[in-house]
Amino acid sequence: MTHATTTSMIETHPKGTTDVRVQELADCIAACFECAQACTACADACLAEEMVTDLRDCIRLNLDCADLCATTGNILSRRTGQNLTTVKAALEACRTACAECAAECEKHADMHEHCRVCAEACRRCEQACSDLLSVIG
Amino acid sequence: MTHATTTSMIETHPKGTTDVRVQELADCIAACFECAQACTACADACLAEEMVTDLRDCIRLNLDCADLCATTGNILSRRTGQNLTTVKAALEACRTACAECAAECEKHADMHEHCRVCAEACRRCEQACSDLLSVIG
Amino acid sequence: MTHATTTSMIETHPKGTTDVRVQELADCIAACFECAQACTACADACLAEEMVTDLRDCIRLNLDCADLCATTGNILSRRTGQNLTTVKAALEACRTACAECAAECEKHADMHEHCRVCAEACRRCEQACSDLLSVIG
Amino acid sequence: MTHATTTSMIETHPKGTTDVRVQELADCIAACFECAQACTACADACLAEEMVTDLRDCIRLNLDCADLCATTGNILSRRTGQNLTTVKAALEACRTACAECAAECEKHADMHEHCRVCAEACRRCEQACSDLLSVIG
Repeated sequence: MTHATTTSMIETHPKGTTDVRVQELADCIAACFECAQACTACADACLAEEMVTDLRDCIRLNLDCADLCATTGNILSRRTGQNLTTVKAALEACRTACAECAAECEKHADMHEHCRVCAEACRRCEQACSDLLSVIG
Repeated sequence: MTHATTTSMIETHPKGTTDVRVQELADCIAACFECAQACTACADACLAEEMVTDLRDCIRLNLDCADLCATTGNILSRRTGQNLTTVKAALEACRTACAECAAECEKHADMHEHCRVCAEACRRCEQACSDLLSVIG
Repeated sequence: MTHATTTSMIETHPKGTTDVRVQELADCIAACFECAQACTACADACLAEEMVTDLRDCIRLNLDCADLCATTGNILSRRTGQNLTTVKAALEACRTACAECAAECEKHADMHEHCRVCAEACRRCEQACSDLLSVIG
Repeated sequence: MTHATTTSMIETHPKGTTDVRVQELADCIAACFECAQACTACADACLAEEMVTDLRDCIRLNLDCADLCATTGNILSRRTGQNLTTVKAALEACRTACAECAAECEKHADMHEHCRVCAEACRRCEQACSDLLSVIG
């Protein structure tokens, strides 16, 4: 996803940008979709590995993390009305999934490059969720 | 979704059913997808109402709730490996979204039948998430 | 998903039911979400099998089919405005994915019960998509 | 999504890159998720407009397009096994949805900046799907 498009969609929303931290929001949305894609691809790459039987936990965590990241990216893309309680709950669940998935991927990052790349995307998304949670109170 | 299919998928999993409360799990998965579908349909029905301008909050909550319910239903459908921290976080986020969405839909349940039907699906899903959370401790 | 809720959501939509075959539509939506859930669960069950290396194709087809079924179920849940070209394209893609996934699952239905259950859900969804395509012509 | 991450995930897949056009694939995946996010955000922005009653068709097309783009991005992110028939069907459905949604957004691109940005993302995704379809033949 071109980050620029996400930023433009925030800036052109009828609500304007006075009520929102544009940068943190755009960063978090981009990080969510980057992580969702990396996790979907990592689950598939793990499945193709010879040693797939050792990667079952990783695949499962990848798939759960992909689902939560995509959902959180969607929720953050909406600004009409107020839904702060749900937004926070989604961010917290997403951060949890990213941390769990990153920890697992990091265990075999030396052996599988796709796990290393995926772990980095998970850590960026975990951080972006934390950053956004800290500014939306 | 035929509830029976979900139950069969749990019972035929290689892990067996000794580690899981089949009924609570099948009920919660079914409730998640029922609620996801109802919320997607309710958002669309609200959009078609003459008084759509009064239903903006409802549509937004519907869409967020639909995303979280579908994601939680997917996560609960996986049992390979261990991912309890993420499962709990997803269930909590889903329960929160269902409660918020139900409360909004109930405000105009007298005027719009689809909001009444949707609110009931949300309340069932909220309860099913609570029930499952209480047994997976 | 309780089929009854889906039918209620169609019947309480502001557009009414004069323009739509309620039964075929509700059946197809229910079949899509039933199949999406079965495929998500089957991918996970295959992953947990000892002989997972023989089930890679099945897992991949399961995941693709699950995504298309969930998307088609969502698209069919919307009736505001007109989007018939997209609806048909989604139904055709969904039918294709269901047929491919069913054919693969049927290959090891004798050995893995979850593949048998999943194949049946895929065939039901394939048929429901065909039926709906034939009435919306 | 950082395009670089998607490219890395393709390059580090156990299958390698001899069987795939890395650039076209990475471009199409990125275009799918860019468009999915833009459509989700455009639906929400339209909903917040004073003249929302004139934007019902646009919102519905946005939501359908978002679902198909996300699903197609996921399917393209998988390369294990063979699923070419489904891949092509998804690409065709996605291209159709993007073309429909772009055409609608373009009608009010002069009045609503978010529709202009979204229409451009739809046209890029439509083109990327066409490009990928032409190379996977």
